[in-house]
Amino acid sequence: MVKTPFSDTPPPAQNAPGDTAAAPTADATGVRPGDSYVQSFARGLSVIRTFSAEAPQQTLSEVAMRTGLTRAGARRILLTLQTLGYVSSEGKQFRLTPRILDLGFAYLSSMPIWNLAEPAMEALSAEVQESTSAAVLEGTDVVYVLRVSTRKIMSIGLGTGSRLPAYCTSMGRVLLAALPPEEARAILQATPLQTHTGRTVTDVDALMAEVAQTRAQGWSLVDQELEEGLISVAAPIIGRQGKTLAAINVSGQANRTDAATMRARILPPLLRAAQTLTERLGGLSR
Amino acid sequence: MVKTPFSDTPPPAQNAPGDTAAAPTADATGVRPGDSYVQSFARGLSVIRTFSAEAPQQTLSEVAMRTGLTRAGARRILLTLQTLGYVSSEGKQFRLTPRILDLGFAYLSSMPIWNLAEPAMEALSAEVQESTSAAVLEGTDVVYVLRVSTRKIMSIGLGTGSRLPAYCTSMGRVLLAALPPEEARAILQATPLQTHTGRTVTDVDALMAEVAQTRAQGWSLVDQELEEGLISVAAPIIGRQGKTLAAINVSGQANRTDAATMRARILPPLLRAAQTLTERLGGLSR
Repeated sequence: MVKTPFSDTPPPAQNAPGDTAAAPTADATGVRPGDSYVQSFARGLSVIRTFSAEAPQQTLSEVAMRTGLTRAGARRILLTLQTLGYVSSEGKQFRLTPRILDLGFAYLSSMPIWNLAEPAMEALSAEVQESTSAAVLEGTDVVYVLRVSTRKIMSIGLGTGSRLPAYCTSMGRVLLAALPPEEARAILQATPLQTHTGRTVTDVDALMAEVAQTRAQGWSLVDQELEEGLISVAAPIIGRQGKTLAAINVSGQANRTDAATMRARILPPLLRAAQTLTERLGGLSR
Repeated sequence: MVKTPFSDTPPPAQNAPGDTAAAPTADATGVRPGDSYVQSFARGLSVIRTFSAEAPQQTLSEVAMRTGLTRAGARRILLTLQTLGYVSSEGKQFRLTPRILDLGFAYLSSMPIWNLAEPAMEALSAEVQESTSAAVLEGTDVVYVLRVSTRKIMSIGLGTGSRLPAYCTSMGRVLLAALPPEEARAILQATPLQTHTGRTVTDVDALMAEVAQTRAQGWSLVDQELEEGLISVAAPIIGRQGKTLAAINVSGQANRTDAATMRARILPPLLRAAQTLTERLGGLSR
């Protein structure tokens, strides 16, 4: 029953704006994308990823439709996930269980940087009275790993694991600036460059100029390119061997904190916090 | 190569204090725990879960040791995870990538309650000037799904996905109180009941009395049973059909906020926040 029948087509990439993972080609190890071992795992994960705010619970047919699996294939995976405790069912409806969080927790707890970063970010947020976040690059996106929010709620809620496109965010530009320019360009070229506001830069050469400026000055300020009214400034956290491990930012509302105020009032404490974390991580000073 | 050779033993449960998932018995669906389909998925997930603060990066041999897989089995799964972008390698060292967070994010974003709960919890935390969290029951543990922290850092850092035993935490007792008594008792009987402090209740009957009291009064206060100096009070968030969806709590330091102060100053705003969330979720009023 696990012989990967031809009707059991591979799942399309789900929720994958940043899906630029290593191209799935066979390697010298004998692990090939077509292997049923790889496929069963990929399918299980793709089924997990079909659950969302829009689809908190799904029937077998809905999962089949969203993954491109046959009903039989979707059923087999849902029952597998249920056997393992990652999915529960009520009548015909399936939903994820909180056990799923163990997987992300394995990542977060394996990165000592986040334990170090949280107190420094809480102190920064308290000092500037704005929300602060940390993110890493994943494909063409930044993925949020930490957030310390103030009571002034932003219009976008960004918890751990949420994604935003790198090209139009301050943390994205900081992380792109840490890459060799040809890698940064390749990521920008792979990105669907959308105009979110009248200010969004969507030209690859113009973005590369922004990235170069970010590299030269050691920080990035993005003023309402992702969303009207949203402004943020970011700086890198640098680990051993001078490698950028993450970006941290402070975000605010442009009508309350304009770009000049961001630079004058927010940037200095942000750079101090980034420098403190860089030093704690044993990184080179900039 | 996916025929599950006998040498490829199933992984032992990893990090599984609360591993009381549905007993893996064959059902009428034909999905059996011994199926290679189920096994390959279970093994992939168990490899992910071997990464931790103590083992942020691992060699193939270390993964094999921690999972009980053969070296060949561990290698196959690591390369599968790498092909799918969930693991990266540098030399002989493997580590998780932030793509892992997508899986937990699928869970969190599929639960609209957390988007509703966060602003109410931020308001509560600002009002009482203490940290507040939300958690759900998973096996014998509570799993943290949200946390709003104040600058007063607790000795234990509890991010999304972290677990604590249900029996000695206020959120745990609230969640146990929502179950039929025989289910609550079964969970307590399955729990390794440890004495964390001189105050920890570890007798099942005594715990059942605490759970009954929690049910009767609609909240729980736990005073230094998990850790010296840590005190917390919790209440349920109730959804449609009167079902408890989660618990929220406020935690504090006993030397600053004793039990009487918790009840007088913290409990009323906590109950108001829980009631607000219960009403927003369309639940029955208590």
